[in-house]
Amino acid sequence: MAMVGSLDAWLLKQILALIGPAPIRLIYKNEEGISPPGVEPVATVMIPGPRTLFELLLDPEVGFGEAYTDGRIHVEGDLVQFLEIAYKTAANAPAYGSLYSRLASKWMDFQQSNSLRGSRHNIHRHYDLGNDFYQLWLDQQLVYTCAYFPTPAATLEEAQIAKMDLICRKLGLQPGETVVEAGCGWGAFALHMAREYGVSVKAYNISHEQIRFARERAHQEGLGQRVEFIEEDYRKISGKFDVFVSVGMVEHIGVDHFRGFGSIIHRAIGDSGRGLLHFIGRNYPTPLSRWTRKHIFPGGRPPSLGETADIFEPWDFSVLDVENLRLHYAKTLEHWLNRFEKAQARIASMYDERFVRAWRLYLAGSIAAFQSNTLQLFQVLFAGSKCKPMFWTRASLYSDQASEIEATKWTPATS
Amino acid sequence: MAMVGSLDAWLLKQILALIGPAPIRLIYKNEEGISPPGVEPVATVMIPGPRTLFELLLDPEVGFGEAYTDGRIHVEGDLVQFLEIAYKTAANAPAYGSLYSRLASKWMDFQQSNSLRGSRHNIHRHYDLGNDFYQLWLDQQLVYTCAYFPTPAATLEEAQIAKMDLICRKLGLQPGETVVEAGCGWGAFALHMAREYGVSVKAYNISHEQIRFARERAHQEGLGQRVEFIEEDYRKISGKFDVFVSVGMVEHIGVDHFRGFGSIIHRAIGDSGRGLLHFIGRNYPTPLSRWTRKHIFPGGRPPSLGETADIFEPWDFSVLDVENLRLHYAKTLEHWLNRFEKAQARIASMYDERFVRAWRLYLAGSIAAFQSNTLQLFQVLFAGSKCKPMFWTRASLYSDQASEIEATKWTPATS
Repeated sequence: MAMVGSLDAWLLKQILALIGPAPIRLIYKNEEGISPPGVEPVATVMIPGPRTLFELLLDPEVGFGEAYTDGRIHVEGDLVQFLEIAYKTAANAPAYGSLYSRLASKWMDFQQSNSLRGSRHNIHRHYDLGNDFYQLWLDQQLVYTCAYFPTPAATLEEAQIAKMDLICRKLGLQPGETVVEAGCGWGAFALHMAREYGVSVKAYNISHEQIRFARERAHQEGLGQRVEFIEEDYRKISGKFDVFVSVGMVEHIGVDHFRGFGSIIHRAIGDSGRGLLHFIGRNYPTPLSRWTRKHIFPGGRPPSLGETADIFEPWDFSVLDVENLRLHYAKTLEHWLNRFEKAQARIASMYDERFVRAWRLYLAGSIAAFQSNTLQLFQVLFAGSKCKPMFWTRASLYSDQASEIEATKWTPATS
Repeated sequence: MAMVGSLDAWLLKQILALIGPAPIRLIYKNEEGISPPGVEPVATVMIPGPRTLFELLLDPEVGFGEAYTDGRIHVEGDLVQFLEIAYKTAANAPAYGSLYSRLASKWMDFQQSNSLRGSRHNIHRHYDLGNDFYQLWLDQQLVYTCAYFPTPAATLEEAQIAKMDLICRKLGLQPGETVVEAGCGWGAFALHMAREYGVSVKAYNISHEQIRFARERAHQEGLGQRVEFIEEDYRKISGKFDVFVSVGMVEHIGVDHFRGFGSIIHRAIGDSGRGLLHFIGRNYPTPLSRWTRKHIFPGGRPPSLGETADIFEPWDFSVLDVENLRLHYAKTLEHWLNRFEKAQARIASMYDERFVRAWRLYLAGSIAAFQSNTLQLFQVLFAGSKCKPMFWTRASLYSDQASEIEATKWTPATS
């Protein structure tokens, strides 16, 4: 480090102090690498010069992601493991919870408000990137939410079907019942419920590309009579239904809108209906990183379970069952990232290298977040105060022998 | 009703307006009964005169229970069904949510504060009534919390063992681990964990009678080395443990103490431990009736799930699983009430008829509350942020084939 000037040296010292004994090798300005003694580094991070170093210290929450996307920072080795460490490092960084960070976060909330108009803009930016793009790395049915792996070795295709069936079993869907789905993606789940469980579905979504695709699919499958796809906001849901279901939309609503969301659910199913919400959550109230909100999920806000009380409690809904599937989301994302990497040349030709890097960081960062307990995945089953009981015990949800036997064989990894 | 004076007539009219078309027959002053036309009454209520009528209208929340306990009001027919209707009636009564009722409720909170000293007094009043008394109507092992019926036909004895096993399976107890139990009753669960799962248990309780009994049991079973019963408040828990468990104590803590309770849990299990809380809950924040707090559970306060966020969220605990077992508590209470009625002469000779009536009302009212969705029973499994994952799916919790097959045969009753 003899060539490094005094400002550089000071900045570098701060970064190294943050990283501490973490197994990361740091290369600054193509000098020789620095890593803590006696441990094998999981990744090598290359920082080109003082500008990037300075940005990292000033605002690591955004600075790292932007430098990585620009290609100014390179990471060699295990990106996911590196990001798990980076999360922990960032949590200890003095700048992380600073006044600046909090003000910037509030300002972003304001800019990305989930009003009727704001939501349309926010959703458009992520979900209307092009169906061709998502087809390159999602499962065949295009299910863009956490899958449920009966065994860790299940394929992604199997696990997405298992997830849809798990939700239908929890809800106890009966032929002839009516279901409203808020946020239906490309329509796979609405079609699955209608095809496999004989229900009628009204499915709402404000992503134009997704709705177009879903309608075409319903038509091809001959399910157009029983599944209606409506390009409209959840706040515009009308009619009465037996069941309300939403998979992967709650994290786009914003906690300030939860009470209103609960009133929409209650208007739809009354006191005698039931429902299930499947969403990314948190252990305690905390916003998404500003990088993620700026570049990936504008307006996104995974809630804590405590925050979701505003959805259920004002309407006397009973929470019947909550399941946390965070490890299943880590595995889902591993499948997605693998497929994404295989298609990266194609994706770069559709967009550019910056896009590929940003999305790699988002997918790898999400694996790290679910594995390290920074993000959770909750399924909450609930019922109106006059709803008939659905099951006596949960044993009937687990009648598939094969998955049961496999599940007991699974050995927990260290978290 | 010709003999009824004008004040009586007015009071009676108010009561009848509240009852409305409910299938209840009312007999006032031994006159002929009044009931809505065209329905078969589930119960006949006998009100002796204007004083009782007036008290019922002035403060039904306390007035009914006191008149019933005094023997001034008689109910013939199905007491549980009558109470379900009475709950709904009371919820519509103008006095129920009145300023007086709310002030009286706050005053009671103050009088029955769950401070260290207050809790000891509150717990003493209920749990130190005499072990002989509880032995007359609880199961053989003296488990005074909601049981888990693998099938609705299981015996109470089977269901209490099944409940203890369900909790142990959820927690994934391993031989040699250490468990702290807050609020251990007569010790059945602490002994079960040690005997069947090979763990060491420190069990806390401030009921002198219960602790005395539990210690004797541990000694008789030769488990004194591995189960320590400590007559002390949960706030005095000391030491480090793998697991924190509490069955039926959270409803005695008071929501103002939840943050402190969370800190006690975190001190005991740190970031790497896990725990389970089993408690009576609500769909939304609301106090117990003043009659119940005055005569049965001083200081009692079943929380909503939203209120329990104060226990988990400040400590980065992950909620892994929530199960609502309210129908199992209704069934548990049916068993208790049956046994209680069989022992009523004996109980009257131990205490008096007023005591028998008050406890009958409490047990029957609790059945009504769980059946009508007024009370819930939650089991919340949680883990520290660095706890190793316990299971891949919940399927392994349900490997008992017999219960699984039986469970699917169960036909839901109308709520």
